Amino acid sequence: MAGPLDFFTVVETQRALRRFRPDPVPDAAIRRILAAATRAPSARGAEPWFFVVVRDERTRAAIGARYRAAWEVAELRAASSDADRDVRDRPHYARMMRAARSLALHFAAAPVLIVCCLDHAQLGPLAGPDCTLRSPLAAYASIFPAVQNLLLAARALGLGTTLTTLHRAFEPALKAILDIPAAVEAVALVPLGYPIDRHGPTRRKPVEEVAFLDRWGQPFSG
Amino acid sequence: MAGPLDFFTVVETQRALRRFRPDPVPDAAIRRILAAATRAPSARGAEPWFFVVVRDERTRAAIGARYRAAWEVAELRAASSDADRDVRDRPHYARMMRAARSLALHFAAAPVLIVCCLDHAQLGPLAGPDCTLRSPLAAYASIFPAVQNLLLAARALGLGTTLTTLHRAFEPALKAILDIPAAVEAVALVPLGYPIDRHGPTRRKPVEEVAFLDRWGQPFSG
Repeated sequence: MAGPLDFFTVVETQRALRRFRPDPVPDAAIRRILAAATRAPSARGAEPWFFVVVRDERTRAAIGARYRAAWEVAELRAASSDADRDVRDRPHYARMMRAARSLALHFAAAPVLIVCCLDHAQLGPLAGPDCTLRSPLAAYASIFPAVQNLLLAARALGLGTTLTTLHRAFEPALKAILDIPAAVEAVALVPLGYPIDRHGPTRRKPVEEVAFLDRWGQPFSG
Repeated sequence: MAGPLDFFTVVETQRALRRFRPDPVPDAAIRRILAAATRAPSARGAEPWFFVVVRDERTRAAIGARYRAAWEVAELRAASSDADRDVRDRPHYARMMRAARSLALHFAAAPVLIVCCLDHAQLGPLAGPDCTLRSPLAAYASIFPAVQNLLLAARALGLGTTLTTLHRAFEPALKAILDIPAAVEAVALVPLGYPIDRHGPTRRKPVEEVAFLDRWGQPFSG
């Protein structure tokens, strides 16, 4: 495992890595990544999360086949509606889409898949008695911070990940494969492994493009 | 500003801090926190986020008055429905609720409020032409990782924060106060300042309680 790593270095170099070496990921590393995930905040301190770590090859293959099928449908739909016209000309778009496509075609090549789950039964007033979400925003505020901790911790340990949500297109099948109870929602599907490509640094819009002071439209000149 | 800080130390000691010293927060610190926020992943690499940094005292007071009113309504409702019966006996619940209440009554005492926003117009196929969300899950997956980066970066710089979503009860008023456009959703309201209380370490459910291997119910013994 890697030694201590500066916080800001981790944040500034964490990026989606979608191609993995076949090398197994030690249990101790996965455990540390999950422990980091659980340090995130959650509404009412409820910690309404579960994580299913999938190592089994046949299970990964079953999930991977469905991921690939969902990708192919989504790709056709996006092409026919030109859904990405607003971002297609950005510098990294073409490379990102090639990498995302390659991941989708070989999803089970990741030695580990982590299914990040939100238990609606632990959301108190944020879910109804039938476990439907009363406030999707507040509910997802109790799981995506944990997912981000997971991505960052993986990067800190030299592991690659990417946050995916395409499993939404086959969530009932995913839940059946993994025996996930009805009240539990599979929120993110994160492939994990030692990456073929390198971590960051990443490029992003500059702060002055996305930050305002005191009211919308007023520059944050900090 | 603090020197380099080990990534895992930041993650393990980041916790909600809800009482603030009046000392101003330097622009450079806010800028660094926002830069960290923007390093998070987002669907299609769209970076569909904006951050409104509120320092102005009257604006904070206007937001604070509404936050307090929303708290009082939510408190009555939670009490009458016993909404927290599932978590009320946890070790830190009483202390957490006292601190959350005290924050609500003195919300504007935080020297800075950061309104984290999601621009539905930058979500491509995740939102409809009228900017309603087609997939709330995938949409919020493009903003809460950024919010978590923000919370962690604040902790790395010795600043306190807490993730709140109670503004949902008065979002139209909040958007009016800050001139936020119709297609932009205020997703989180984060008070920021030098904290009176100390950062972590936090206590959480152990990994073995929330992690499974290969299928639900099978222990992850890592």
